Amino acid sequence: MSFFASRWVQAPEHVQEVAGLPGGFRAAGVACGIKPDGARDLGVVVADAPDTVSAARFSRSGVLAAPVLLCQERCDLRALRAVTANSGNANAATGGGGLSAAAKVQGATAAIAGVSESRVAVASTGVIGVPLPVDTLVRGLPGAAAQLRADGDADFAEAIRTTDAFCKRASLEVRLPGGDVRLSAQAKGAGMLSPAFATLLCFVQTDAALEPQTADLLLDATAARSFERITVDGQLSTNDTVVLMASGVSGIRVAPDSEEELALGEALDALMRQLALLMVADGEGARRVGRVVVTGGHELHVEAAARAVANSPLVKAALHGGDPNWGRVASSVGMALPGTAPLPVDIAIEGVQVCSQGRATPHDADGLARAVQGDEVEYVVGLPGEGAATEVFFSDLSHEYVAINAEYTT
Amino acid sequence: MSFFASRWVQAPEHVQEVAGLPGGFRAAGVACGIKPDGARDLGVVVADAPDTVSAARFSRSGVLAAPVLLCQERCDLRALRAVTANSGNANAATGGGGLSAAAKVQGATAAIAGVSESRVAVASTGVIGVPLPVDTLVRGLPGAAAQLRADGDADFAEAIRTTDAFCKRASLEVRLPGGDVRLSAQAKGAGMLSPAFATLLCFVQTDAALEPQTADLLLDATAARSFERITVDGQLSTNDTVVLMASGVSGIRVAPDSEEELALGEALDALMRQLALLMVADGEGARRVGRVVVTGGHELHVEAAARAVANSPLVKAALHGGDPNWGRVASSVGMALPGTAPLPVDIAIEGVQVCSQGRATPHDADGLARAVQGDEVEYVVGLPGEGAATEVFFSDLSHEYVAINAEYTT
Repeated sequence: MSFFASRWVQAPEHVQEVAGLPGGFRAAGVACGIKPDGARDLGVVVADAPDTVSAARFSRSGVLAAPVLLCQERCDLRALRAVTANSGNANAATGGGGLSAAAKVQGATAAIAGVSESRVAVASTGVIGVPLPVDTLVRGLPGAAAQLRADGDADFAEAIRTTDAFCKRASLEVRLPGGDVRLSAQAKGAGMLSPAFATLLCFVQTDAALEPQTADLLLDATAARSFERITVDGQLSTNDTVVLMASGVSGIRVAPDSEEELALGEALDALMRQLALLMVADGEGARRVGRVVVTGGHELHVEAAARAVANSPLVKAALHGGDPNWGRVASSVGMALPGTAPLPVDIAIEGVQVCSQGRATPHDADGLARAVQGDEVEYVVGLPGEGAATEVFFSDLSHEYVAINAEYTT
Repeated sequence: MSFFASRWVQAPEHVQEVAGLPGGFRAAGVACGIKPDGARDLGVVVADAPDTVSAARFSRSGVLAAPVLLCQERCDLRALRAVTANSGNANAATGGGGLSAAAKVQGATAAIAGVSESRVAVASTGVIGVPLPVDTLVRGLPGAAAQLRADGDADFAEAIRTTDAFCKRASLEVRLPGGDVRLSAQAKGAGMLSPAFATLLCFVQTDAALEPQTADLLLDATAARSFERITVDGQLSTNDTVVLMASGVSGIRVAPDSEEELALGEALDALMRQLALLMVADGEGARRVGRVVVTGGHELHVEAAARAVANSPLVKAALHGGDPNWGRVASSVGMALPGTAPLPVDIAIEGVQVCSQGRATPHDADGLARAVQGDEVEYVVGLPGEGAATEVFFSDLSHEYVAINAEYTT
C-alpha cells in the first residue's frame, strides 16, 4: 500500500486502500475568493444520515481562534452533521467580530445542509489577526453545496491546504468481524501561512455505526498516539481541530468493547498515525523525520525528555545535516530533568549505542554516520527505571524553515 | 562608554571603563594544543590574597560536565583562589575518566598557584563526549603560570572562546562611597562548537572586600537579571559556570546592606547584563536582539509567556526577517497558558499597539515595519492583572544558525 509509507506505522492486515467517502457523506472543495491566487479555499463535508454521531478535539491554546471558540460553545459535538472549513484566513485574534463571522458561516452552512446550527462545526486556517472575509465565504457556500459528492473528499482536502506541499488524505476499506466499513480522513498541517502560523486540521468519516461515547473514546485514544505525538517546531496553533463523524449507514454496529471496536480502532490508529507522520514529513522545509523513544521509571520524566529532544533546535539541525550528534540529545535530556545529575542516560541512534550510563560508548562512527542519512532517523533514550515509555516524531530544522518563516513575509 | 552598548542597560554614573584586572588578581591565556588550529585554549586566573572570597553558580542540567560536578563536590566555593578554564573540549559525558581528568587539572593548578586543591575551580567548553586531553592540558599549565599578569584578562578571555565571534570582557573602575574599587569580568557564550553545544562561562573579579555571603547575594541577584534572562535557542548547557572572586586588596569594605553594597551591586548588575546581551547578540548567526517584557497578575504566567515568546522559532524567524509578526507572539503566549481562552492579551511592538484584549488593533503598519529593522526590537505583552513583570532577551533564528548547527559538523 502506498499510503502507509512510514516504517513506524504498521498497515493493519484488515485494511485496504480505496477511493471516496464512506456511505452517508458528501464533500466538496471550491475556490470562493479568500486565497488571492484563486486556489480552492472553502471545503464542506455533510453527513446526510440524521443520526450521525461525532467526536471532536481542539487546540488547548489560551489564544483560540473564533471558530474553535464557537465550536466549543455552540455545537453539539457528539452529533455534528456538517463541517465548513476555510483556508487563507484563521479568523484568530479577531475578537467579537470574529465570533460573529464564524456564527454566520455556521448559520449559512446549516441552511445549505438542512441541519440545525448546533450540528455544524466550522474551522479556519491561514492568516491571523485579519478579519475573515465572511461575505466572500458565505457567497461561496451555495457553489460548494452544489458540488457535494461522495467522491468530493479530494477537492475538500485541497481546499484546506495552506502551505502544505502535498495533500494528506486516505480512504480505507476496513474488514470488521461483522462486515466491511469505510473510513476516510482529510488533513492539513505542515507549515506557515504568511504571516500566521501552522495549524492542524483533520476530518475523519466512517459509515460504521457508533455510540457517541465510542466515537469519543476512539478519537481520544488514536489522537493520543498520533497528533499528540508530533512536533514541527513546538508551536501550538490557535486553530487545531480534529472531527470524527460516523454515519452508521453501513449498518455495521461497533459496540463498546467489541471485536469490531478493536478492529476499527486499529485502522483509525494506523490512519491517523500515518497522517500525523505526513504532517511532520511536510513540516516547513523538512528533509527528514526523527523519532525519539524514551523509556524509564517515571511517566513525567520520559515525556519531558522526549519533548525536549524533539523540540531542540540543535538536535533538529543535526538531523537536517545528517549528523549523528548524540551530545545534543544528551544535553536536551539533561535540560529536561534539572537537578538529577549525574544522570545515567543511555542513548542509541539507529540501533547504534553511543552513550551508556551517561558516558560515551565506543562505536562504529562511520556506520552511524551513514545510518542517519535516511528519511527517518530513530533515537532511543534510556532513563533509569522501568515501566514508562513514550515517543515523539519531529521534523528537522532547515534553511527552508528559516526562509519560509523569516523571508517570505508580507 | 563603548562597552555599555545596549539601550537596555543603563551604564551607572559611578562606573568608568578601564583596563586590567583588579588588585590581587593575575590571569593568563595560552595555546596548549587542545584546539587543532593552535588558538588559545587554556586560561588561568589566580588570586594572590589568601583571604579571597568567592561565589559560584552552575548549570542545573541533569547531564552535567565533569568539571561542574567536580566544582560542586570538591571545591570550597566560598573561598576559591584559582580558576582553570579550557576551550576545545567540554569534558562532558565522559564518565569516571572525565572526573579523574578534571581532578588532575585541579591538582596541577593548585600546585602552580600554591593553593589547596579545594580552592581551585575548573571549567571546560567545547566538544562533548570526547575524553579531555588532560595530559596536553596539564603540560600547558606551567607555561600559563609563567604568563600570569595583572593585565592578562584579555588573553584569558581569548582562551575561553569557542565560536564566539568577538571577545566578551570589561574592566570597570567603580566609585563607592568608601573609595574606588575595580570590577572585571571575562565571559564566553554564543554558539556552537561542533559537534557540541553552547556554553556560558563568566569569571568576575573585584578587589573590594566582601563577606562570602555578600558575594553570594550579589552574584545571585545579578545573575537573576542577566544570564538567567537570556536565550539563544532555549538549550541549557552541561557546562555553564559563573564564578565571582573578591580579593579585598583595595581595602574598601562592602558591608551587608551598606551603600557600598548597593553601588557595587549596581555596577555588577550593569556589567553582567551587558555581558549577557553580548552573548545574545553573538548568538549563532544572530542579526538582532529581541526583548520581550510581560506583565500581569501571576508570576508563573508572565514567566511562562515570556519564555514561550523568546524561544518560539516562529517569533525568532520573524525577528530575523524584520517582520512585525505579532500573531506569532499571540500564539506563543496562548501556548504557554493552555486552557485560558479567550485570553485578553495586549501586545505592543516597539511601542506600537498591535493587539488589545486579544483583538487586532488598527495601527500604522508601515511605521511598525520600519521600527523592527533595527538591531534591538522590543515586544511588550500585557496579561490580565497586575503586580508581576518579567523580561527575556533573545536572538533571532537565521540561516547562519542552521548552517552552523547542521552543516559545519564533523
